[in-house]
Amino acid sequence: MKQTEIITIGDELLIGQVVDTNSAWMAERLNEVGVSIKQITSVHDDRTHILQALQEAEKRADLVLITGGLGPTKDDITKKVLCEYFNTELIYNQSVRSHLERLYAGRPDVLNRLTDTQCLLPKDCTIIENKVGSAQGMLFEKNGVTFISMPGVPYEMQYIMEKGILPMLEKEKGEEIVHRTLQVYGISESGLAILIEPWEEQLPSTMHLAYLPKDGIIRLRLSGYGVNAEAVENELAKVKPLLREHMTDRLPESVNHGVLFAEEDKTIEVLLGELLKSRGETIASAESCTGGKIAHLLNKHAGSSSFYWGSVVAYDNSVKRNVLGVQAADLEQFGAVSEPVVRQMAEGVRRVMNTTYGVATSGVAGPDGGTPEKPVGTVWTAIATPHGTYAYRFQLGKLRDQITDRATQVLLIWLFKMLKEA
Amino acid sequence: MKQTEIITIGDELLIGQVVDTNSAWMAERLNEVGVSIKQITSVHDDRTHILQALQEAEKRADLVLITGGLGPTKDDITKKVLCEYFNTELIYNQSVRSHLERLYAGRPDVLNRLTDTQCLLPKDCTIIENKVGSAQGMLFEKNGVTFISMPGVPYEMQYIMEKGILPMLEKEKGEEIVHRTLQVYGISESGLAILIEPWEEQLPSTMHLAYLPKDGIIRLRLSGYGVNAEAVENELAKVKPLLREHMTDRLPESVNHGVLFAEEDKTIEVLLGELLKSRGETIASAESCTGGKIAHLLNKHAGSSSFYWGSVVAYDNSVKRNVLGVQAADLEQFGAVSEPVVRQMAEGVRRVMNTTYGVATSGVAGPDGGTPEKPVGTVWTAIATPHGTYAYRFQLGKLRDQITDRATQVLLIWLFKMLKEA
Repeated sequence: MKQTEIITIGDELLIGQVVDTNSAWMAERLNEVGVSIKQITSVHDDRTHILQALQEAEKRADLVLITGGLGPTKDDITKKVLCEYFNTELIYNQSVRSHLERLYAGRPDVLNRLTDTQCLLPKDCTIIENKVGSAQGMLFEKNGVTFISMPGVPYEMQYIMEKGILPMLEKEKGEEIVHRTLQVYGISESGLAILIEPWEEQLPSTMHLAYLPKDGIIRLRLSGYGVNAEAVENELAKVKPLLREHMTDRLPESVNHGVLFAEEDKTIEVLLGELLKSRGETIASAESCTGGKIAHLLNKHAGSSSFYWGSVVAYDNSVKRNVLGVQAADLEQFGAVSEPVVRQMAEGVRRVMNTTYGVATSGVAGPDGGTPEKPVGTVWTAIATPHGTYAYRFQLGKLRDQITDRATQVLLIWLFKMLKEA
Repeated sequence: MKQTEIITIGDELLIGQVVDTNSAWMAERLNEVGVSIKQITSVHDDRTHILQALQEAEKRADLVLITGGLGPTKDDITKKVLCEYFNTELIYNQSVRSHLERLYAGRPDVLNRLTDTQCLLPKDCTIIENKVGSAQGMLFEKNGVTFISMPGVPYEMQYIMEKGILPMLEKEKGEEIVHRTLQVYGISESGLAILIEPWEEQLPSTMHLAYLPKDGIIRLRLSGYGVNAEAVENELAKVKPLLREHMTDRLPESVNHGVLFAEEDKTIEVLLGELLKSRGETIASAESCTGGKIAHLLNKHAGSSSFYWGSVVAYDNSVKRNVLGVQAADLEQFGAVSEPVVRQMAEGVRRVMNTTYGVATSGVAGPDGGTPEKPVGTVWTAIATPHGTYAYRFQLGKLRDQITDRATQVLLIWLFKMLKEA
């Protein structure tokens, strides 16, 4: 297997102004073609430090992917440092200039003398084309190690990876790595580990198990090294009965399901969207505490307009009354975070938007607003269906983002399970 | 200044299943107390590799912050490896046990024998308390270098940093680093660099300028090392007239403003929220292509209920008609992505939600649906105010997320500038 490392360059990463999302994206895609990442290193836009990182990576890896520091402004120095490291010089590339003229046609304010410096590229490198931006990919070889430098702008890096690098790596595919994932809800990480311990202990040494908890969900990922997909799937099949059997006690009784909710490593909104599409059904959301998170998840993927029709974010009570038709008397008597209100929200949005399902949330996201009866973390959720409306109260943590992320996930999981098992 | 490095441990980071948001959070907070991060290194849950990362960091740094690998399951090995590196052993800590009993009171399924292993802690370390989770912070000293290990769960790491580590570092504060940021919209990075070049070239060597572009916004950050805040602010004051003077050509004529829109490093939703609160005004959004992103931004911060009342995500045309009162004839004649429709959406949500302002988006987010007249990236936006409704068409890129992120940002910037300059 190729020993691969990623070096990300940019002060913004080291002062925390930008989160490094590139590395995760790259690692995921590289994994798919059998390339595993040994280390990710983030360094400043600093000559000495970049040189040092390159030297260290060269000792450990045979493929080094570098992102960042290729912009046209003074703080971007990667190209110069690469020339120094690979003992080469910059020369003007006319075909890159032609590309820039096409890319920025009609925008003379962008195609200026600084942008023109993007046509200066190291003499001794192979250019990997970037059609969607100005900074080109650059491939160098040194002492049997391959180095590839890419811009840090995510969609430009992604373009170069997908069009240039991944196809190249796919050809020289190394040892097969197969990942398979089960997704479970409603149990703690340690509780799950104890439950499946006998199974985990008998796993062959070619397989590695990981627990990946997030927003109340645990993704249980089994990775096989040098074995085929079927072997990994067979191992995972052994643990499934255990999960189904034990995890039934923390979800709505009216739904009566366990919480092994998915056997694919897809997000719940994608799973639910695919299911709704295949059934020709539609959904809308009425959101108080989740404030648009459900809407955002449901429509973030292309093609969602076939099953997602819309949402009402009813933050203020007047919106719950006027737009969703929640009874003023119920808001008064039970409060916004209550079963009658969340039921009427789900039914209201289903009626107003004329969809198959309406889902609703109303909760205390904090930090203020908690009471002894409804402490911070209390979330009422409801699902309105053609056959009736179901409501359930969850207690989902203590921190604002945690509560709203979990509420979003659990409501979609609940509906997904309900439809799968109906 | 302390040479500080971060090591993040976890297979999930290197196969791309989890984005490392911890490092950015830590870097930002550490910067505030004068600690700058030299390098961030992500490694696998692998003994040899963790030991190697510790050795390398020890050579370069005098403070090493480590996150991850402290869970109770088998894949988490950090604690054992630390014992090996610091030549110590695990002993049972009764006060951590008492803490776990309080934390998980009434949840015997969580306080099980695996969770109990969290009470085993290295003999030769100082424990930094984690009241919100089971894995404690651990501080080690070796050869004059301080190592601190924390769990990778973001809110637990944040707790340990805020309660334990940051106060400790603040006492031994190093060289002052001061950051000041201007935020500009509507110019390319290279265009901006050329515009401010004369200013940038005369900056003293104690100051460093960075261009941080995202979603159409460029944050221009000036950092001063060992100088006071006033000196940095004075430098930045020199460049402002240049920005105001030149950047007026790409925003709605009806608003007539430049695009230096903020002199603080706060997100646009925070700036707008503060302004609305101070004016006692309210806002609602009607979203088609942005699909809840505006709603999510406006209510993601605590306290937003005083200015944000709600949203209608009108993905389907029937929702635009039935909930927002858009004329069917206009949808028919001009299409959903058009000035008449987006105006009626903004006015509709302002009326239905009874707010001071209504903002609306309708665009072609792609990848499908583009036409020669309205290619992918076309976004109509509108702002309904007590004094009339303004609409503007933007062309915002080619990729779905890019288009909707930019549309969200630009609409909030536009309203913010409109209110500031009114």
